[in-house]
Amino acid sequence: MNNTEKAWKAIGGGIAAPKGFYAAGVQAGIKYKDKYDVALIFSDVQAQAAGVYTRNIVKAHPLHLTQRHLKNGLARAIVVNSGNANACVGEFGDQAAFAMAEVAGMYLGIEPQDVLVASTGVIGVEMPLDRVLNGIRVASSELLDDVVKGIRGHKEMADEGAHRAALAIMTTDTTVKEYAYELPCSQGGVIHIGAIAKGSGMIHPNMGTMLGFLTTDADIPSADLQRILSEAVEESFNMVTVDGDMSTNDMALLLANGSSGITPEGEDRINFERMVKSMCIELAKEIARDGEGASKLMEVSVSGAKTMEDARKIARSICGSSLVKAALFGEDANWGRILTAAGYSGAEFNPDKVDVFLGELMVAQAGRGVMFSEERAKEILGFKEVHILLNLHDGEENATAWGCDLTHEYVTINGSYRT
Amino acid sequence: MNNTEKAWKAIGGGIAAPKGFYAAGVQAGIKYKDKYDVALIFSDVQAQAAGVYTRNIVKAHPLHLTQRHLKNGLARAIVVNSGNANACVGEFGDQAAFAMAEVAGMYLGIEPQDVLVASTGVIGVEMPLDRVLNGIRVASSELLDDVVKGIRGHKEMADEGAHRAALAIMTTDTTVKEYAYELPCSQGGVIHIGAIAKGSGMIHPNMGTMLGFLTTDADIPSADLQRILSEAVEESFNMVTVDGDMSTNDMALLLANGSSGITPEGEDRINFERMVKSMCIELAKEIARDGEGASKLMEVSVSGAKTMEDARKIARSICGSSLVKAALFGEDANWGRILTAAGYSGAEFNPDKVDVFLGELMVAQAGRGVMFSEERAKEILGFKEVHILLNLHDGEENATAWGCDLTHEYVTINGSYRT
Repeated sequence: MNNTEKAWKAIGGGIAAPKGFYAAGVQAGIKYKDKYDVALIFSDVQAQAAGVYTRNIVKAHPLHLTQRHLKNGLARAIVVNSGNANACVGEFGDQAAFAMAEVAGMYLGIEPQDVLVASTGVIGVEMPLDRVLNGIRVASSELLDDVVKGIRGHKEMADEGAHRAALAIMTTDTTVKEYAYELPCSQGGVIHIGAIAKGSGMIHPNMGTMLGFLTTDADIPSADLQRILSEAVEESFNMVTVDGDMSTNDMALLLANGSSGITPEGEDRINFERMVKSMCIELAKEIARDGEGASKLMEVSVSGAKTMEDARKIARSICGSSLVKAALFGEDANWGRILTAAGYSGAEFNPDKVDVFLGELMVAQAGRGVMFSEERAKEILGFKEVHILLNLHDGEENATAWGCDLTHEYVTINGSYRT
Repeated sequence: MNNTEKAWKAIGGGIAAPKGFYAAGVQAGIKYKDKYDVALIFSDVQAQAAGVYTRNIVKAHPLHLTQRHLKNGLARAIVVNSGNANACVGEFGDQAAFAMAEVAGMYLGIEPQDVLVASTGVIGVEMPLDRVLNGIRVASSELLDDVVKGIRGHKEMADEGAHRAALAIMTTDTTVKEYAYELPCSQGGVIHIGAIAKGSGMIHPNMGTMLGFLTTDADIPSADLQRILSEAVEESFNMVTVDGDMSTNDMALLLANGSSGITPEGEDRINFERMVKSMCIELAKEIARDGEGASKLMEVSVSGAKTMEDARKIARSICGSSLVKAALFGEDANWGRILTAAGYSGAEFNPDKVDVFLGELMVAQAGRGVMFSEERAKEILGFKEVHILLNLHDGEENATAWGCDLTHEYVTINGSYRT
């Protein structure tokens, strides 16, 4: 896929780039002053919707509500807060999540069951519900102003709301994760897709992995949307690990409102699905790159595996190894740790056949070290993006995972997050 | 078990405390000058033997040899080097491991197949075999001097060799892990057990976990010994995690030479098995306490689980969580991370029934936060040993795991281990 020319191109507008989508972000003072912390995403018509959630059996309260509201495959809005996870607080949490949906529905003039809810932040502390609901009120009002501009044909004037929504879902993120693409269709017309995400800590495979929200104006029924999203998540968010900790709150949502008037078919459909996957991978890489305390992005590609599941296990295991991560931070070409992490991944392979590369530099062949330039290795490990490649010479399957280095900064951030 | 009076008591002598066992450690200059790095453990008669090994499919060369030499359940010596793992170096590695056994056998006057070999250190670099073999020569000579003293009835004069052996297996360990117990038997006489271990980095469940060597003068056939060791390892070494990285080299060995003349039976047998387990737990805790960069020991006890496997999974998952470890370092009572790590452990439980305690302080009840004294929590988290307790209220099974905090020092150590 990386070798083929992409049929889509990047545009501005973020989550509100697709026709009929609007977004807002406000400062509700949930945990910090002067921090955007309530986001609202809205479609001016009913949208088909799909979701993927954390596999942690301890699930935050909004996840239960969102899963329930998504049963009919329809949604019109997503309301998100940062600064409080609304997790592990008992009945209050369920009531708070419901209040968020209800108040958003009221101000936006839609049914509460068409509102999806997500939260991120500290676990086990009751959220300051009055501030959250007030934030939703203000965000709704700003968003509806943008809808009016949209009706008057000036939707681009509302771009700022999308950006503020991207800011509002951030916690310890240091970069805004906001993207949009447009796909010209061979059947005529253009399909848009927009996305925002947050990541940083508690990032690990086997779930939605973080918060990721995608919107599109393509016309796709929710069952198809669910399959497309699930497949994309498998190769993107589920292949990212920052610290091995799987959160209680993670989810990825995809809303398709059909406002482009296009139901992509044939080649367009193939391109659309690729575009969704590409968007998810872009978000996933950005999340890894911006992992808590990270100074560089690690990309691990495993080829020649017997099964894709084996390739994925190995790629993720290497990305998750504290020792590999610390060696990356120290720019130490300790390939033995890479092979070791492959060895305990649970995947089947023959250690005596494995070649290991750092970038283009071979450091091990057939499971044992080769002479290589320490100087060149140090240079490669000093890059902001470090590529580690393993060829298992055992089959045809391959996979890629993303992670980051383990730094002093990670320890500092997580030694004092709650207080 | 912790509540019953122990039938054994701690004594000196370390690995050479049991009758007929001798040990030596020398400075062979394998990686560093002035560092003990070759250890030899020897029984003056044939011993029954048992072993447990890493489950990493990438196994160091000496593991293959030791597994082969242990097939007959017999051994007379263990030769160990630190400073080089003898892993992932191809045929040279197999030859080097064999040379170590052969040279030790030659100098000690025993068959090479009665010599077990272990290595620890950097992976993927050929060991300086001449220095290793010279070290074995010197160690053998010192050890045989001790045997002569032993024959003359002055074995206690040889204690220093056991201590040097304990020093010689250390890598980034900061404390010597050396213990001995004696068990007076109701059938008359005394059984001794001695042990040394090394741990520190690359410590994770599901294997021998580190290097651990145990000797005893009890008379027990190897098949029984294997069962006793395997069961003890399940509750000790396999319940320790420092960084989630499972090494290629880990093994635990137990040799029983019968020189006490006692085959423990009935109550004595029960006490003997408890003593082995207790010894392994003592070593495991010491390994966790001395984890790379660790400033404190974390002990996680899970009770009220449906199955023991669930209890173990949860206890290990909490000990392995980077976020829990960093919070421990920061003395932040972030119990949400504890519950989250339980949630992704793969164990089955009802999150809404879980109570969480820090020491005696309840911080969450029935899955949600309770009011607690932040001051008292901070005090408890400031101790050198922090106990975390979870009651799942879901059954009768329980388990305990050990780990340590994640510190800046861990990142520093592992950012520059190889070079």
